[in-house]
Amino acid sequence: MDAAAGTPGSVMQRCDALAEISEERGLLVRPYGSEAMRRVNEKVEGWMLRAGMSVRTDAAGNLIGRYEGMGEGTFILGSHLDTVRDAGLYDGPLGVLIALACVERLHARDERLPFAVEVVAFADEEGLRFGTTYLGSSHYAGAFDEDLLELADRDGVTLAEAARDFGGDPDVLTGPGSAPKDILGYCEVHIEQGPVLEERDLPVGVVSAITGLSRIKVSFSGQAGHAGTVPMEGRRDALCAAAEFILEAEAAAQAEPGSVATVGEISARPGAGNVIPGEVDLSLDVRHGDDAVRESLRDHLRSKAAEISASRGCEHRWQARQESIAVPADPYLGVLLEEAIEDAGVEALRLPSGAGHDAAQMAEICPVAMLFVRCKDGISHNPAESVEEEDVAVTIDVMGRFLRLVAEGGRGR
Amino acid sequence: MDAAAGTPGSVMQRCDALAEISEERGLLVRPYGSEAMRRVNEKVEGWMLRAGMSVRTDAAGNLIGRYEGMGEGTFILGSHLDTVRDAGLYDGPLGVLIALACVERLHARDERLPFAVEVVAFADEEGLRFGTTYLGSSHYAGAFDEDLLELADRDGVTLAEAARDFGGDPDVLTGPGSAPKDILGYCEVHIEQGPVLEERDLPVGVVSAITGLSRIKVSFSGQAGHAGTVPMEGRRDALCAAAEFILEAEAAAQAEPGSVATVGEISARPGAGNVIPGEVDLSLDVRHGDDAVRESLRDHLRSKAAEISASRGCEHRWQARQESIAVPADPYLGVLLEEAIEDAGVEALRLPSGAGHDAAQMAEICPVAMLFVRCKDGISHNPAESVEEEDVAVTIDVMGRFLRLVAEGGRGR
Repeated sequence: MDAAAGTPGSVMQRCDALAEISEERGLLVRPYGSEAMRRVNEKVEGWMLRAGMSVRTDAAGNLIGRYEGMGEGTFILGSHLDTVRDAGLYDGPLGVLIALACVERLHARDERLPFAVEVVAFADEEGLRFGTTYLGSSHYAGAFDEDLLELADRDGVTLAEAARDFGGDPDVLTGPGSAPKDILGYCEVHIEQGPVLEERDLPVGVVSAITGLSRIKVSFSGQAGHAGTVPMEGRRDALCAAAEFILEAEAAAQAEPGSVATVGEISARPGAGNVIPGEVDLSLDVRHGDDAVRESLRDHLRSKAAEISASRGCEHRWQARQESIAVPADPYLGVLLEEAIEDAGVEALRLPSGAGHDAAQMAEICPVAMLFVRCKDGISHNPAESVEEEDVAVTIDVMGRFLRLVAEGGRGR
Repeated sequence: MDAAAGTPGSVMQRCDALAEISEERGLLVRPYGSEAMRRVNEKVEGWMLRAGMSVRTDAAGNLIGRYEGMGEGTFILGSHLDTVRDAGLYDGPLGVLIALACVERLHARDERLPFAVEVVAFADEEGLRFGTTYLGSSHYAGAFDEDLLELADRDGVTLAEAARDFGGDPDVLTGPGSAPKDILGYCEVHIEQGPVLEERDLPVGVVSAITGLSRIKVSFSGQAGHAGTVPMEGRRDALCAAAEFILEAEAAAQAEPGSVATVGEISARPGAGNVIPGEVDLSLDVRHGDDAVRESLRDHLRSKAAEISASRGCEHRWQARQESIAVPADPYLGVLLEEAIEDAGVEALRLPSGAGHDAAQMAEICPVAMLFVRCKDGISHNPAESVEEEDVAVTIDVMGRFLRLVAEGGRGR
């Protein structure tokens, strides 16, 4: 049976329902512009319409539900509906569905705030298909980088073509954006994806800042050859160069407290068991709360890639895919979130976000806040992602209080 | 214009023509059971028929042309028509087409030997699709391993299904084989795939033995997680474990003279830039002329995989895909090849083969010999594979002399 709209039970059921919509059987994967994204947008649009919202889809494929207010201004709530490969149920969808639940509660009471509320379901935050993040929110915010249109996915389809296939228009994509001009602020609910709230036994927490990140495509090229006849000493094995680089990235991040470095994708060509790899591509993701530390770690790894290549008679390419600086949350909205949490009877903890979020992009056009929800064992980007219904209940309550505090200008300072 | 049948020019033209038939645009790849294999077999069948041969295709998809003789017995010439990914023009096809040229010369003179000659074009030697070699020759020789039928390719198609799709019958595949019962011997022409003949300035050489090899699928599993939020110290990154293993394999082979170890294939799952890899599969290929040395190197790497996994909180699997012991060539046929080479005015050099060949499989049912042809820079399994037409002329001449010596029982000892 369907739980009533606006309840934590309904949010949990909807997270389950959206997880059924995937590009592959047996695992959750919803890349930008896929049939699964189209179907998930359709489903959420239906819920938005029933919550009394008007709905539009923009040139990036972002789904935007608007609940009108009594006066001027628009407050934005949102998160994303795309996923990584073999994803969990909550990273992204939970934020969209809790925002929707807040509007459903207003709608049920026929209540209007002094401002409109837009619930935005961004079409690409994870960057699974094109190796770059925030595609959806960068268009919404009018900051879409035109150069990205030439990026190609694994099948050689460019981002411009994918956007067109998804009903968008590349020219509009790089234009002024689909956000209203009277934005008051943006608040995003998201699972923590880390262990802090669980360790502190808290259902929610206020994000102090979003970490910066560098994403790079690193390629090594050597010389393909027969695995049985080319002696070890004559080899220029691109995969051995890549392996050395992977371990350098790990060691360098281990040596720099607070930093992480990850190689998540790798491919070796020609890719046969009896052929020495001549070409290897890999993805590198580097993060640290302090931009200067991250940049120095990134530059260190760049020179390591060069050193490794040179020592093995290989060549390498270093293609920056994304550079995002650390983004502090808005202090005033942060205070309102803290007040809302305390009013709900919970200790208000501040914590940084090691993951990037659409809020980082939205910060370019308005004040932003983020509310983290506790998740089991800090696991995310994995089918084992888990969130408690009681925590979702607290989150909906806190977000309702937060919107009212925004309307009232806080607890009366 | 087409060069006359039986000439080196015709062999070179046909190598070019077969290289046009591929599963992918812009690079040569002909896996077992593919449409490209079907088309290449069709083309070669036409040439065989014009050379006065009767032609059959067996349950493995091997194409067999038979040129009848004056008396009892069958001598087999052959090589394979499948390729690695991004292959060169000569590895496999050259041996088939030189064998065909020898028969064309007999046919042009309307000459019959005292025995029949079968030219076999094996359907799978490289093992690109199922990660195992000699599929074609093992059926021909009646030694097909039934367990292999359950192997699946990247798309989940089993070998049994692929054989059926290719017009074969899995039950017949594992049966007594398609070779005639009266085999006198087998001789395979193949490019050297190494630098020895070029260094010694010789067009051809006699293979003394074929090296043994071990092919293993090694899998590491750890824990997938978010690249930004899981600290380095808590990670169980399957790709870092794999990287360490790749460098161990390289170092161990470097430390053991005459041995080679190669990781040619790798895949990481879930396979996204912002997700720590939870699962990695890779291929390991280990070779050495001495079986005991190869086995000890293989076992050393197996314990290294276990050590690396344990030290990283990961798990590993070790699945043997192939174990081939070293195969010495037949001494008598080797002497006849040497005599043929000397009769052609060339120094007869003996050299081992670092690569595996169908001859290794054929050795289970008959005496085998191999003739290596010089190739540029020792390069193979690569589009840069290169063979000189003059060397092909010498090879056709030597093979014609060799067949006559087999018929006459040598130079008269």
